[in-house]
Amino acid sequence: MSRADRFLRACKKQSVDCTPVWLMRQAGRYLNEYQEIRKKISFMELCKNPELACEVSLQPIRRFELDAAIIFSDLLVPVEAMGVEMDIIEQKGPVIFDPIRSKAAVDKLPLFEPEEETAYLLESIRLLDKELGGKVPVIGFAGAPFTIASYMVEGSHSRNYLYIKGLIYNQPATYDALMSKLCANLIGYLNAQINAGAKAVQVFDTWAGCLSPGDYEKHVLPYTRRVIEGITDKSVPVIHYLNGNPALLDVLGQVGADIISLDWRVYLDEAWQKVGKEFGVQGNLDPAILFANPEEVENRVKDILTRANNQPGHVFNLGHGILPNTPVENVELLINAVHKYSKR
Amino acid sequence: MSRADRFLRACKKQSVDCTPVWLMRQAGRYLNEYQEIRKKISFMELCKNPELACEVSLQPIRRFELDAAIIFSDLLVPVEAMGVEMDIIEQKGPVIFDPIRSKAAVDKLPLFEPEEETAYLLESIRLLDKELGGKVPVIGFAGAPFTIASYMVEGSHSRNYLYIKGLIYNQPATYDALMSKLCANLIGYLNAQINAGAKAVQVFDTWAGCLSPGDYEKHVLPYTRRVIEGITDKSVPVIHYLNGNPALLDVLGQVGADIISLDWRVYLDEAWQKVGKEFGVQGNLDPAILFANPEEVENRVKDILTRANNQPGHVFNLGHGILPNTPVENVELLINAVHKYSKR
Repeated sequence: MSRADRFLRACKKQSVDCTPVWLMRQAGRYLNEYQEIRKKISFMELCKNPELACEVSLQPIRRFELDAAIIFSDLLVPVEAMGVEMDIIEQKGPVIFDPIRSKAAVDKLPLFEPEEETAYLLESIRLLDKELGGKVPVIGFAGAPFTIASYMVEGSHSRNYLYIKGLIYNQPATYDALMSKLCANLIGYLNAQINAGAKAVQVFDTWAGCLSPGDYEKHVLPYTRRVIEGITDKSVPVIHYLNGNPALLDVLGQVGADIISLDWRVYLDEAWQKVGKEFGVQGNLDPAILFANPEEVENRVKDILTRANNQPGHVFNLGHGILPNTPVENVELLINAVHKYSKR
Repeated sequence: MSRADRFLRACKKQSVDCTPVWLMRQAGRYLNEYQEIRKKISFMELCKNPELACEVSLQPIRRFELDAAIIFSDLLVPVEAMGVEMDIIEQKGPVIFDPIRSKAAVDKLPLFEPEEETAYLLESIRLLDKELGGKVPVIGFAGAPFTIASYMVEGSHSRNYLYIKGLIYNQPATYDALMSKLCANLIGYLNAQINAGAKAVQVFDTWAGCLSPGDYEKHVLPYTRRVIEGITDKSVPVIHYLNGNPALLDVLGQVGADIISLDWRVYLDEAWQKVGKEFGVQGNLDPAILFANPEEVENRVKDILTRANNQPGHVFNLGHGILPNTPVENVELLINAVHKYSKR
């Protein structure tokens, strides 16, 4: 079985020759060749340059036996596409210069046309898909509505999420208007990525772990489900990632994804039981393990594979994005160990 | 029943007239009278001034019908007592100027004498206990060994905990030496607080939620249990707080505390079931709720009380420390609502 099939078959819970593996942020700072390109161009400029975005997406595929190629892009691309002024600041992350906190500000947000406002991303996907020539599938992605809304309302990384929670508690109509608009935009955005060549999509709800389960079920889950239901091509697998709250696993099946991506705060077997065996799971190695000695890395890979027990529907990944300064030799070791120790 | 009994009886799972309530960081920045004192004195100076530390601990007790008075202090007091240079920097939090990352640095750390090195804290507790005159019990506290070790090894708030995790994975003997020394110091530190008048103690493992359950069980839980087992007076209730990973609830009973303090990421009834009904639980309101409208605050209080169902062993609290700028009128509403809606 080639890298062309392994990942997509696993997403559909079909049999595979060994467990597929890819890494969140695999096109990124831990690679020298990525850093070389970033010396010449800012993060957002790189997102908007299809040739270079395609190139950095290919870099990890050339080095390692990865089973999928996620397109190099950012969660905030659709935010900028709505005309919201923002930037990605080194060491600090995304900054929204004029955070969205009123009904008037929400009403002004447009429904954007992906083929126009995010044409560069779609071109990057087309280029990447062409370069890969059907040998490795392309993954497209978007933030879930709550995570995008959090960025837009908080204005930057947040510790306590007081503005977005304040909107939920004190201005529910504004919150609903914002989330509904984001849903409409994200549906078009994901469908456009699929039309451009993405063979699977991942929806990142990176910040939803800050919520109580009651708030998540009532104020977040229905919107994420709306986005996933809006994906037209039902043959395209959808992966849902949420970080930082294992107590939500009991309800995550309801988002409508095929695969639930786990962070490292849970044992994979217990988490899979909670999510439901009708779904696949992705994960769940702590990215910090890649800073350990090779024996430890291999032991941790084996532990996760033992818990997954070669059941159909496991995609190996980290529990969060790969960290800057991760030793490249451990990345190679991890990827090869996944394939080696999961041979069917 | 008076405020003298309610909290301690609940900690021992005895019957109460209504559910006791106190708030983590109840002596803090949301109170104007606290800010007035802080205008004249830095955070660490305030910790080291028994009269003023007693005064700020009393401030919330004067304002509200709180059922316990936690002593004003900081998790890093025992770190400084070990001779490690540090400071609490406004907006940034604690900073350790020369982080502990080698066996040599660990070996140099002394076993400190609480009655000498932290005499000011013990004097604060004696003053507070005397001022309260038996009407409200004093809570003492310490960080759990892992959380203290994280600060000492990382040097400040950390996002990825790479240094402390690196110590666990790559220098296990150094990690064990550090944790063992912290255990010995924390046992003496907690016993001294009890001798000075603390009627209950809380152990904060604020950062342990960054770990996988395997790492937590193997590398953290045994040390926390060692500290709690080292408390001499077995009649003093011990509360254990951990933030950010509900998947650990299944094993938290093993730390040996009487009460498990929950964050807001779980439904209280489900969490209590996981922890085990032989334990009490504390919590679990999201501190952000206090920024909502009064009706919402009251509804959330009622929801938690309904889930606790007046079973013996519930202490009402937030899921994390009260936030700066929290509206004082909502704090008052919360405390009165807890008592009102939990009347037996």
